[in-house]
Amino acid sequence: MLRSSRYIVALMVVAIVAAVAPIGSSDASAGIASLYRTGDWRSEKHVPVIDCPVEFKAGEPTTVTVTIGKETEHPNTAAHHIRWIRLYFIPADSTLPYEVASFEFSAHGESVLGTDTSTLYTDPKVSIDVRTGVPGVFYAAAYCNIHGLWESAKAITIAE
Amino acid sequence: MLRSSRYIVALMVVAIVAAVAPIGSSDASAGIASLYRTGDWRSEKHVPVIDCPVEFKAGEPTTVTVTIGKETEHPNTAAHHIRWIRLYFIPADSTLPYEVASFEFSAHGESVLGTDTSTLYTDPKVSIDVRTGVPGVFYAAAYCNIHGLWESAKAITIAE
Amino acid sequence: MLRSSRYIVALMVVAIVAAVAPIGSSDASAGIASLYRTGDWRSEKHVPVIDCPVEFKAGEPTTVTVTIGKETEHPNTAAHHIRWIRLYFIPADSTLPYEVASFEFSAHGESVLGTDTSTLYTDPKVSIDVRTGVPGVFYAAAYCNIHGLWESAKAITIAE
Amino acid sequence: MLRSSRYIVALMVVAIVAAVAPIGSSDASAGIASLYRTGDWRSEKHVPVIDCPVEFKAGEPTTVTVTIGKETEHPNTAAHHIRWIRLYFIPADSTLPYEVASFEFSAHGESVLGTDTSTLYTDPKVSIDVRTGVPGVFYAAAYCNIHGLWESAKAITIAE
Repeated sequence: MLRSSRYIVALMVVAIVAAVAPIGSSDASAGIASLYRTGDWRSEKHVPVIDCPVEFKAGEPTTVTVTIGKETEHPNTAAHHIRWIRLYFIPADSTLPYEVASFEFSAHGESVLGTDTSTLYTDPKVSIDVRTGVPGVFYAAAYCNIHGLWESAKAITIAE
Repeated sequence: MLRSSRYIVALMVVAIVAAVAPIGSSDASAGIASLYRTGDWRSEKHVPVIDCPVEFKAGEPTTVTVTIGKETEHPNTAAHHIRWIRLYFIPADSTLPYEVASFEFSAHGESVLGTDTSTLYTDPKVSIDVRTGVPGVFYAAAYCNIHGLWESAKAITIAE
Repeated sequence: MLRSSRYIVALMVVAIVAAVAPIGSSDASAGIASLYRTGDWRSEKHVPVIDCPVEFKAGEPTTVTVTIGKETEHPNTAAHHIRWIRLYFIPADSTLPYEVASFEFSAHGESVLGTDTSTLYTDPKVSIDVRTGVPGVFYAAAYCNIHGLWESAKAITIAE
Repeated sequence: MLRSSRYIVALMVVAIVAAVAPIGSSDASAGIASLYRTGDWRSEKHVPVIDCPVEFKAGEPTTVTVTIGKETEHPNTAAHHIRWIRLYFIPADSTLPYEVASFEFSAHGESVLGTDTSTLYTDPKVSIDVRTGVPGVFYAAAYCNIHGLWESAKAITIAE
């Protein structure tokens, strides 16, 4: 009940913010919060998609995959590419987030012959094994070298 | 004028959020924004301090130093330490932030003899040279392995 | 022919080095080369295992998995863990290596309650998709926070 | 005595290797060792320069600066730049290296308007504070996105 009303107020706040301030504005007062953007990954190719079971078995390695451009491929050139994906986890009822992993995608086709000549590319997709004994929310962050910071979230539970 | 009223509404929004949702709550809807905390670096040792001129000369390398624990030293052990500092920049009137640099502090005293035995420690402070031809805001982010994500910001201008 | 004799001389050199200098000695003259160790991953749990097809289709995303402790699990605690895996590629007949990706494994059980209390762990295993149009050798490097740098290699070809 | 003769044999080995195998060859047998190059930083702009006192006071923060292109500036564009510098330390008489820090230089001028349009650049130079109670050797590694891996070393002692 309290939780639902918190959601409703949060949605109202988001609506007010959206109406008043352009997301990503450079007001120092707004904080890093204002730098992250999100959206529907089906139509916005920068939004990270977190694929994993919604239910983890406590303490068992569980594969988490994060993909950029799952529906529409993102460019991968020296001029325009996904530089990194980072994964965070915040336990339910906690206020302290953990970094789970940080992934740099380093090869974008450049060589001594010029941009897009090496044939070597690292795609912006990564899978790792994570163990947790508590429920919570995974947050994926991603950075496009020219379109900035993007995020998404996925809540998971622990099997009884 | 428009800018001032935007600030006022932003402050109202912050007030509503503060009243309703605990900062760092694990609501997936709140986004990564909710994971970052800030404060006065004189009393809260996790808050990064950005030291640099407030005025840059266009295109000239200018030293930017980011320090955690500038007033009160932060612990540096395997159990409790600052893992990284990351620096972002968002040009004024732009909505697209850039990552400037990412710094991992890797040595926290551990060795094969146990934690806090190696005598080797990397302090959570870093200086780099940055060039910009446009004004904007630097954002520093930092991660404590047990106290999560922290941020601060500093606006700079370009000398005429 | 020339290639075979190069291998033979290389083996002779390795034999001389092994006889004379302990691997990992701190002679500044020896270079970073002297810091990396390798071995049989079946008996030495630090050695990274690179799993991927030996034949890539030119330009097609191909999954490369790197695992530490594939046979014998490596510890994962604040005191002793795998910090990162990095993947390099050097095209055949080239002398210029590329970094493909760099992966930080960030969660090792620590929380405000002490080491090994969070239940959250990132396992030292990662899968990514890589594209190449030329044959060459992947090198995996890994870092254990108390046992240093480890490496392995795997050559791949391109399907005709 | 033993140490001197080890140096002499090491030099012989280096001479043999130099005569036989091109540095950076893609033989999987050669290991990551074969990927790193070095030289005189005054004539080869990729070679990292480690600036710090040759004598540290045990346990006191001491500034270590690593610079690429100290004599001749290295290019900094999306097509050609220094991606990272990493610093290692190996205590004297030990065979286990530690990673001290890892620095990503992320801004190379790219924006939505094209390469070299943002005016924002991170220079390949970094200063940090390191504490050690034992003597040893710092190794700096650096990565150029098209010219591969470079290294240098500097031995330090501890004040009596």
